[in-house]
This record gives sequence, C-alpha cells and structure tokens, in this order.
Amino acid sequence: MKSILTPLGPKADKDTVRRHNLSLVLRAVRDEGERGEATRAGVAARVGLTRAAVSSLVEQLMDSGFLTESGKTFSGQAGRPGTALKVARTGPAGLGVEINIDYVSVCVVDLAGTGRVRQTEHLDNRGTPAGEALARAARIAARTLESAYEQELRPVGAALALPGLVSGGSVRQAPNLGWNEVPAQRLFAEALAALRPGHPVLPVASENEANLAALAELWFGGLGDVRSFLYLTGEIGVGGALVLGGELLRGAHGFAGEIGHVVVDPEGPECRCGSRGCLEQYAGQAALLRAAGIEGIGGASGVLELERRADAGDPRAVAAVGEAGRMLGRVLSGAVNLIDPDAVVLGGIYRGLMPWLAPPADAELTGRVVSGLWSPGGGRLRASSVAGDAARGAAALVVQDVLDDPVAYAEPSGG
Amino acid sequence: MKSILTPLGPKADKDTVRRHNLSLVLRAVRDEGERGEATRAGVAARVGLTRAAVSSLVEQLMDSGFLTESGKTFSGQAGRPGTALKVARTGPAGLGVEINIDYVSVCVVDLAGTGRVRQTEHLDNRGTPAGEALARAARIAARTLESAYEQELRPVGAALALPGLVSGGSVRQAPNLGWNEVPAQRLFAEALAALRPGHPVLPVASENEANLAALAELWFGGLGDVRSFLYLTGEIGVGGALVLGGELLRGAHGFAGEIGHVVVDPEGPECRCGSRGCLEQYAGQAALLRAAGIEGIGGASGVLELERRADAGDPRAVAAVGEAGRMLGRVLSGAVNLIDPDAVVLGGIYRGLMPWLAPPADAELTGRVVSGLWSPGGGRLRASSVAGDAARGAAALVVQDVLDDPVAYAEPSGG
Repeated sequence: MKSILTPLGPKADKDTVRRHNLSLVLRAVRDEGERGEATRAGVAARVGLTRAAVSSLVEQLMDSGFLTESGKTFSGQAGRPGTALKVARTGPAGLGVEINIDYVSVCVVDLAGTGRVRQTEHLDNRGTPAGEALARAARIAARTLESAYEQELRPVGAALALPGLVSGGSVRQAPNLGWNEVPAQRLFAEALAALRPGHPVLPVASENEANLAALAELWFGGLGDVRSFLYLTGEIGVGGALVLGGELLRGAHGFAGEIGHVVVDPEGPECRCGSRGCLEQYAGQAALLRAAGIEGIGGASGVLELERRADAGDPRAVAAVGEAGRMLGRVLSGAVNLIDPDAVVLGGIYRGLMPWLAPPADAELTGRVVSGLWSPGGGRLRASSVAGDAARGAAALVVQDVLDDPVAYAEPSGG
Repeated sequence: MKSILTPLGPKADKDTVRRHNLSLVLRAVRDEGERGEATRAGVAARVGLTRAAVSSLVEQLMDSGFLTESGKTFSGQAGRPGTALKVARTGPAGLGVEINIDYVSVCVVDLAGTGRVRQTEHLDNRGTPAGEALARAARIAARTLESAYEQELRPVGAALALPGLVSGGSVRQAPNLGWNEVPAQRLFAEALAALRPGHPVLPVASENEANLAALAELWFGGLGDVRSFLYLTGEIGVGGALVLGGELLRGAHGFAGEIGHVVVDPEGPECRCGSRGCLEQYAGQAALLRAAGIEGIGGASGVLELERRADAGDPRAVAAVGEAGRMLGRVLSGAVNLIDPDAVVLGGIYRGLMPWLAPPADAELTGRVVSGLWSPGGGRLRASSVAGDAARGAAALVVQDVLDDPVAYAEPSGG
C-alpha cells in the first residue's frame, strides 16, 4: 500500500532491503501473535529469512520500541531460544478522526490494531462552518492524544474520515455537511498544531468515511475468506465502498463507491447532490424516519426508536424499513450484476434494522441478479460487525504506514 | 496473467528464471518494435539484463521461431551489432472464435497481435441446439486454421468468446442463445478434434465476449492513458465488462460486468434473464428496432437501416435512439458513481449510433454523477474503436499465454 502520510523526516537508513525486511518481520510477529505465540524461529520460517537475520532485525525492532518479549520464558541469555515476541502495546500508534454529520469520533489504535482510546461527541456539524467544525474535531483529538500519551502510546499520524468526496486532502463535496472544496486536511492539521505548541506537527491524511469503515471491516471484522465485497453504510447519507481482492477501489479520481447516489427513480425527490431520486432519498436515515412517522427525534435516538417500533410490530415502522430494503435490494442487484462480489455488507443504521431490511432486499437480489447465484439467506448479504467503524479504520490506516516502514516512524532518539 | 490454457506438454525446461527472462525479452522486442526498431542493446537496457544474457536469450527465441532479424543490417557475424529484431510473423499464434447470437467470427492473431486471418458467417444460433452450433463454429474454425497454416502460422490454442455467463469452461446461462449449463469448451474442442484427425488436439479456453472485446479495446484500441474503463457492447443483448488498472475484473464467480441486466424500471417488460425492466429491454437491438418501427429486418441490416433513418432525420428513429441513450446514461450514471472509471466505452451497434445516442446519455451522466466530474462531451463517454472485437481479443488472449512462457509453446522439434 502506498504511504498515506508524508514521512516525518528524511529517511536516514538507506538500506532499503533491510527496511523492507524490518517491515516483513514486524508484520509476521503481529500476524503470528494473532494465532498463538510468535518466536524468532517461527518468524524466520514464515518470512523465509535465516534465523540469524531475523534475530538481528528483531533486535533493532525491540531497540526502537516496536517489539517486546512476553517475558514468560525470558532467560537473559543471548539468542533467547523460545522467547515469545509481541508487538509493543506502547509506542507508535495511529489516530483516527471521523467527522460525520451528527457526531465526531476519535480513536487511537496500537500496532496490533487494537483500539485503545475512544472519544465520541454527538453534535451537529451541519449548522457549523467547516473551519469551526474541523477546529472542534481537533480539540476532541487533542484530548484523545492526551489520554494516549498517558498510556505511553505515541500517535505518529492522523487520518480523517469524512462523509463525502475526498481527494488531495480536500472535501470536494459533502452535500449532507454542506461542504464544498474544503481543505479539511490542512485546516485540521493547523488547528491541532495550534492546540499543541512545542509538539511535533502530526502529519494528517484524509479519506472517505465509508472507505475507511470498509477497511476496518476487512481488517477487524468477521469476513473470513471474503476478500471482495461491497460495503454500504446507512447514516444521514448512504455511503458505500468497494473492496476488491483485499484492496480498496478508490477509482480514477478517488470517488468510487458512491452507491447512495445511484438513481432509484429518475423522477423521484430532489437529492442534495443535485440529482433526483437517489437511493439516499429512499434508504437514508431521514427518509426512513419520515416514512415511519418518527418526527422530532433525530440522530441515533431516532434510529433506536425506529428499531423499537419495528420490533414491537408497528406496521408503519415495519413498512418503512421494508420499503427501504426493497430499494436497497434493487440498487444492490445492479451493483452485484456489475461487480460480482463475494458479499454485500450493510453497516451503520442498517445493522440494527437487518431483521426487517434484509428479507425484502434479498428478494430483490434473488429476482434480479442475472447469474442466479444469489440465494436468499445464503450469507452474501450480511450485517457489518461492530468493527466496521470509520474512526478505527482511519487509525489503522496510519498503523499500516508504520508497519510498511517502521524505520520512518522510530523514536527520533530511539536506538 | 494466469495461463488460460493447459500447457501442451510437460514443461521440459526447469530453469524458471530463464523461462521468465525469455518472456521478458520476447515482450520487450514486441513493445520496442511497435515504436521503432528493437535491438539487443535496446532490449538489454529495457529489461535490465546484460547484453550477453540478452544475446543468449535472443538466440534461443530465434532458434524456436519466436524472433527473427529484420535482415536490413544483417552481417552474418557473431554478435550482430545493430541488427533489428522483430517478433516472427510465422509460427505460434492464437485462434479466437466468437460465437454470437446471429454470427460466428473466427480470427487468427500472430505474436505481434496482428489479425492475420478472419472468417465471419452470419447465421442464426438461436434456432440451433448448442452442440450443433458449436460443431458449426468448429467447422468454420477448422477452415480458418487451414488458411493460417498456409501462411505458416501455427495456432497453439483457441479461446471462445461467448455471449453469456461463462465459468469453468461452460456457459452457465446465455438467455439470448437459450443456452443453460452448456459445456461449450469441451464440445467445441471435441468437434474440432474430430475434424482434424492426426493433428495435435488444440487446447481451448472460454470467456464472456464483452470481456474479450474490452481486452481487445485495451490492447489494440485508441484508449491512450486510460487504464480503467467500463465497456458496453450493444448486440441483441447488452454486454458489459470492467477493466480496472489494465486488468479485467472477472468477479468472485466470473460474472462481473453484466450491465445489460441492471434494472431500469422494476415494473418494466420481462427480460429473458427472468427479471423485469433490465437495460437490455430498453437499449438492446430488438428494443431499439421495435421503437424505431423497423420490423422484419433483423441483425446487422436492421441496425444499418436504423442508422440510415436516423441520419435522414426520421423522427421515430431519432426518438428511439435518443430514448435508448437516456436509459443507457441513467444506468451508466449509477455505474460511474460506483466505479469512478476513466472512461465509458460504447461498442457493438452503439458505435454507429453515437451521434444520436451520446448527447442524451451524456446529459443523464452530467446530471447524476455525484462527483460533478462528468462534463458532457469531455471524452469520458466514447465510441469503441474497430479494435473492440471479441474474436481478436480471444485470439490475443492465447497469444498472451505464449508471451508469458514461450518455452511451453515452442515447436515440439524446435531447437
């Protein structure tokens, strides 16, 4: 994966092969550690390097704070046979900042991918100028960073998850936020730097929030062998992302995955994007709550109320969710005909609504997927796990950068 | 690219590095040859091998009949400084066989990618049992092979281009042919073998015709820097293919690209695929001719008549093509929102209808592509070149296999 951040400083180590091998070993320890204990011998077998080479690389990674020994069988001798290795729970980490319509969620993920600190605030970013909304997110991020430092975590970069078309560090268009051509990355970085005088400036990346939620689902969710999937996240907007063969499809301009603006009815209601009858107008949060007759309760509370009513058998709630499911299924059938993915994953507000949403969506897919491969209830339409979380995906994207080239992110005074 | 054919025999040469380098050098000569003259020194610089290594590899490729010297500066001395190299115009070649609804087209492509023999027969494959249609195609192929041998070309494999869902050598479903679970690859290979007693059996591959037309467009068309595009081909059905970053997206089951069965109107006319209101029912050949009031003239003649009438300003013809363009644009806007390709290429019957088809399609795209990046007439919607030809793509796919591992396709007695 291409680096998402500008490296912190000039790359001192010119031995690119060694840098590559450091990355291989660090990843191997992380992956082996997920399934049991990682040892130098196990890592050597996995990456195809000699035991001696691996020992030297492990040494450097321990000196720089990327690896630790579990200590269980630590003997203090050179060679340390059988000692279990782990990625450090302290040191380099990633900061993820999701700025959505009605909340900001910030989290810190360590090298193992574990979420360690989380701070979420419910607020309304629609009524706020973009610069102010980003400054507010920076304040939440600064507080989250304080908590991370207390846990001896050292975030080396931040990634912003934003609900709109993101490219070149800017939000080109985020209809539900009312943002147009907002240089979000720069504004956020400046606001955060101003809050932390004396600290090194944190490099900042940015990406569409559905893309990052899909990556989080891929990395941390329960997808098993699934490597190609379409990801939909129901929020105030309807976001989407495409993962093909384990890689995010960003598209020629970075705008792939905008399934919320696939047309359902060409003469349908006007959409904030400028078109008419987009899926968002039938299966977005506002449309759902309106159709269910839930007025005056916004955001998460409104969705919980909708779940409660549907669960109690309220006919209007059940019909509203069912109709949204039909429209979702109709649009998804087109996407499946086009892409032929292993699975379609529904996240965001759709997770809790699956009992009423999935059957009509499945029926549309069964009737309209031309390959006849769609079997209702066959597991290709599934709810996202709780892992499908854009803030965690953003933080993990930063960690990927560290794993790709640990030397670039070693402590300035490390060694 | 993974080999599409079963290699002809056991791989005698165990030196995989040398085999890989033979492939590199053969491709380098082909690519350099397209832009001027390929020399040993030029090839060495391109592939990063020593001049001596390249000379040895060139020697082997010439002995096996893959390369020739142009002779212009041929001195007869060892080392041959400055001698121009070319891929052979004789020897290994690919056979492509497109079996479509109302025609069969067979072609032979040489190592340089040039179409050398072509035989097309207009007939109706709908009224014929699948086995008989395949046997008829094999007879056309056998005659084409005779012509190839006369030109000292030696097709080493065949690829079938088929209008339907193709996987594992079988047509799973081809609604417009009325085929279901037809083992096309085996039936064709057997029929061809029966026609050529005493000849080695030709290995046969198979693939969806739109996929192969898209590859032909990528390899031989005028796409320039475009590496990601959506390809639509209007025929009796509407086929589609997705090329992302220069690679065909086959999908999890091999069924990606079925844009003809994306729903336009959920309550629309029944489609042969079992769904309702598919794009094919609005922009397929039959629907177009019917809407234009052209009855009783089928196939290519009907389409030419439609072009003639539209060109003469016949209101019904112009309206029919315009409406098809609107429906195409509507479905394409969804696909562009999802995929964000560099371009959308329209082939088949759409090529000649572009003057009346493109403006309404462009208008739909402009209004509905959420990124606002779609500019009408901006060149992202374009007609395919004549290169977008499934039979040539099929033959070229075989040639790709040869270029990937020439040793596997050397003359049995070569050396």
